[in-house]
Amino acid sequence: MNNLQLWQRYQDWLYYNQDLEFYLDVSRMSFDSAFVEQIKPKFVKVFQDLKNVEKGAIANPDEGRMVGHYWLRNPDLAPNQEFKKDIIDTLEQIKSFTKKIHSGEIHPPNQVKFTDILSIGIGGSALGPEFVADALSDVNPPLNIYFIDNSDPQGIDHIFAKIGDHLKTTLVLVISKSGGTPETRNGMIEAQIAYTQKGLVFSKYAVAVTAIGMNSKLEKQAQEENWIEIFPMHDWIGGRTSELSAVGLLPAALQGIEIDQMLEGAKLMDIATRQEDIKNNPAALLALSWYYGTGGKGEKDMVVLPYKDSLLLFSRYLQQLVMESLGKEKDLDGNIVYQGIAVYGNKGSTDQHAYVQQLREGVPNFFVTFIEVLQDRQGVSAEIEKGVTAGDFMSGFLLGTREALSEKGRDSITVTINEVNPFSVGALIALYERAVSFYASLVNVNAYHQPGVEAGKKAAQGVIELQGKILEVLSNAQSPLTLSELAQKVEETNSIETIYKIVRHLGANNRVTLIKDNFPQLNDLKVALR
Amino acid sequence: MNNLQLWQRYQDWLYYNQDLEFYLDVSRMSFDSAFVEQIKPKFVKVFQDLKNVEKGAIANPDEGRMVGHYWLRNPDLAPNQEFKKDIIDTLEQIKSFTKKIHSGEIHPPNQVKFTDILSIGIGGSALGPEFVADALSDVNPPLNIYFIDNSDPQGIDHIFAKIGDHLKTTLVLVISKSGGTPETRNGMIEAQIAYTQKGLVFSKYAVAVTAIGMNSKLEKQAQEENWIEIFPMHDWIGGRTSELSAVGLLPAALQGIEIDQMLEGAKLMDIATRQEDIKNNPAALLALSWYYGTGGKGEKDMVVLPYKDSLLLFSRYLQQLVMESLGKEKDLDGNIVYQGIAVYGNKGSTDQHAYVQQLREGVPNFFVTFIEVLQDRQGVSAEIEKGVTAGDFMSGFLLGTREALSEKGRDSITVTINEVNPFSVGALIALYERAVSFYASLVNVNAYHQPGVEAGKKAAQGVIELQGKILEVLSNAQSPLTLSELAQKVEETNSIETIYKIVRHLGANNRVTLIKDNFPQLNDLKVALR
Repeated sequence: MNNLQLWQRYQDWLYYNQDLEFYLDVSRMSFDSAFVEQIKPKFVKVFQDLKNVEKGAIANPDEGRMVGHYWLRNPDLAPNQEFKKDIIDTLEQIKSFTKKIHSGEIHPPNQVKFTDILSIGIGGSALGPEFVADALSDVNPPLNIYFIDNSDPQGIDHIFAKIGDHLKTTLVLVISKSGGTPETRNGMIEAQIAYTQKGLVFSKYAVAVTAIGMNSKLEKQAQEENWIEIFPMHDWIGGRTSELSAVGLLPAALQGIEIDQMLEGAKLMDIATRQEDIKNNPAALLALSWYYGTGGKGEKDMVVLPYKDSLLLFSRYLQQLVMESLGKEKDLDGNIVYQGIAVYGNKGSTDQHAYVQQLREGVPNFFVTFIEVLQDRQGVSAEIEKGVTAGDFMSGFLLGTREALSEKGRDSITVTINEVNPFSVGALIALYERAVSFYASLVNVNAYHQPGVEAGKKAAQGVIELQGKILEVLSNAQSPLTLSELAQKVEETNSIETIYKIVRHLGANNRVTLIKDNFPQLNDLKVALR
Repeated sequence: MNNLQLWQRYQDWLYYNQDLEFYLDVSRMSFDSAFVEQIKPKFVKVFQDLKNVEKGAIANPDEGRMVGHYWLRNPDLAPNQEFKKDIIDTLEQIKSFTKKIHSGEIHPPNQVKFTDILSIGIGGSALGPEFVADALSDVNPPLNIYFIDNSDPQGIDHIFAKIGDHLKTTLVLVISKSGGTPETRNGMIEAQIAYTQKGLVFSKYAVAVTAIGMNSKLEKQAQEENWIEIFPMHDWIGGRTSELSAVGLLPAALQGIEIDQMLEGAKLMDIATRQEDIKNNPAALLALSWYYGTGGKGEKDMVVLPYKDSLLLFSRYLQQLVMESLGKEKDLDGNIVYQGIAVYGNKGSTDQHAYVQQLREGVPNFFVTFIEVLQDRQGVSAEIEKGVTAGDFMSGFLLGTREALSEKGRDSITVTINEVNPFSVGALIALYERAVSFYASLVNVNAYHQPGVEAGKKAAQGVIELQGKILEVLSNAQSPLTLSELAQKVEETNSIETIYKIVRHLGANNRVTLIKDNFPQLNDLKVALR
């Protein structure tokens, strides 16, 4: 196509929504009209699935769950009065709690106000809050936020060192739906120790966000220890779509971010993505483009390139949302399909000086999503050269890169918003939530479960149990044991490699002694309790 | 293979280096002995190329340059006395300058000491320093560091808001080899404005890192304005391999990081990766594994999963090092090859709650590199459960995930270090620098140029020039112009799409007025200067 044909294609396919100040351009995805005609019938099911989900169908059959994140921004759509009341009450609880924290009505022992937040959670309970904090929090927010999103002792120590003297005015949010996520539980216990060491009573600083009445250990503990407050995670909200539930809204509100604007942006985007007309539905346009880009089989990676520093973590947020939702072994009929789309990216134009070399010239195994933000900054920009600002360069880099990729036959989508604010971030989250639902319908997978994550947890639990047996055997051993002796005594001769790795780790942390004759000849290695 | 066969394979292939406290395990890459026999002869060239590079051959033929990052950690290897002296003198200059900054001998006007650093650079002049600061800087370093690594006005404002009152004690490093990188130049000009607005004379706070005697505009400006100091970037150092040159060592030293340890780790790793025996050379083992994993054609992505918070940015650092080096359209003989390996990742076990679902069950288009750190933390860990620490869980998650992937036929490499410190970080950088060189030799591409980046810059410059013409035409126009009128007047009727994008951006920043009758019917859109 020549440039004028491309311009016509741009106009033909441009999606624009005035209320959202939002543009979507899929014209540089090189599908033709035959492809569109071929995929159109599939969208009959897509739109029907959408209606079923929003009406409260069991959209997650494996777990027997409804999928209700769309109700969060429009409680009138909830399938029953109980859910509707839950949503409205939770939002009210968040606002009222936030007011009390900001005013000092709720305050730490012997202190006037809370000054900082320590958020402990992982995966769906961390990536959304981290993205939103980075994108939207003021430099001087009412409360600063820190995250423990891992089980790394050194990382945890680093966070507490950063908090330093502020610990006595730091509010802790422990976020886990099941209350059983090991990393979150570990982070909480490490936090309890840190508070106790400073003579602070942890429960006076602690808030839980967890499933209510579902046997969450976290709920139980928070009740028993009389924590400051408990916020509900509803059964019909999955972790990776929980940013607009208490999981995301509570930390956002505490940081002074306008959560009503986030919800409003999402609500308007939800309305836009209910249009049963592909060309007038931005989520349908995305799903169609992904299907074209990947052959409906994950054949290409989705590279996400926001040209705005404050959207740096959006690609990591989408990585979870897209890959955990779509990366599935089986489809809904039980066929082995190995689905998914790999997602990566950071930000432009920074990445132009990194991997864009490969995007432009190297292996053509991707399509790009540019995210363009029209407003450069609050206030007027100085000129860098006559008539040219730093923001003009940003814009030029994006347009130039899009052209440069296009010339080389590398496809791209461009999402354009006016500025990064709570409203537009809410809209972006809702857009991608819906696009993932649509794409899952297209390729017929359950977007709402994560069996592979459970398997990983189980495997880790097996390692922990094996370690327990090793330590027990070593504590009863008269003399150092070789790896094969150890394997026999713990009755896991098949797991000798894992046993070696466990004792190597214990050795590095001074909990066993490794006698390294002829190392690295592992047959000669001997282990003793320290 | 059953578990015992895998254990044998583990021992057969385990690479261990006592001096480096370093292990490399490629046993879960499922190559067989036939593959090894087939690739072995290719390594004759690989090792010869290495020798040639280190002796000073023109390893980057397009740019007519030597490639000397290996000399930085062992100046005795430099091909001539001049280079050797440059390396030693630069290191001495960094140390002496750092001492003067830390002691206050060099201090800001009217202030006792510098307290903060603002580093302005992009790509190779940012990713390494950012990674090292995140991995190695103390919570309370001698100087805090901030980065401007983009041309985003809002992002720049955000950094200056964070620096706040400290601006008067903030040392600025402007890092650009050519001195002509637009993002860096823009950041510098924005910084000049910020200092001037506070009544501070920019040159009294400014340090340049740039090519000397090569017509760098940055060198010229720093000379003319009498900046505090100028550090050299040598012609034979590329951006993405510059972390152990002044680019990386200067900010590291200022933050109190032991740069001699970084160099020592890299030097020892360089020695290890000179062994002309694949099994005893960790970089050769990596290159061989990458070749197997990707079919030598980028068929699979490299997922990098460090199980340590402080290594979070390592994957982004590697993304540049690997993709910019290997992502090439043509091989050294001029054949079209579309080479490269896509790299992404963040950290474990966090990512297990994100995209590891797809890795385990979804599209099998990747191999994983686990990075394991044996030491959990400084000091003793509390028990989370009887006999189990948070660090044991981290270790268990890694081992469990490796097993879970392996069971599903998904390959992985494991790199193991004892702890994250300047020595091990230096070693990791050197390891991957060499592995990239080796892999480039295997697939016969120039690892040291980046023609696609230049093309992107040119395309952006074209957009900037077009904007200039548009603004000129509008300033002479009697009445608002349609897009096609505007395109005719700037004599770029082919570029009407870009023209629309430019005026949309100018409109959002109040520099032109868009008259939006029938919007989004773009034929009816009219533009006037504001």
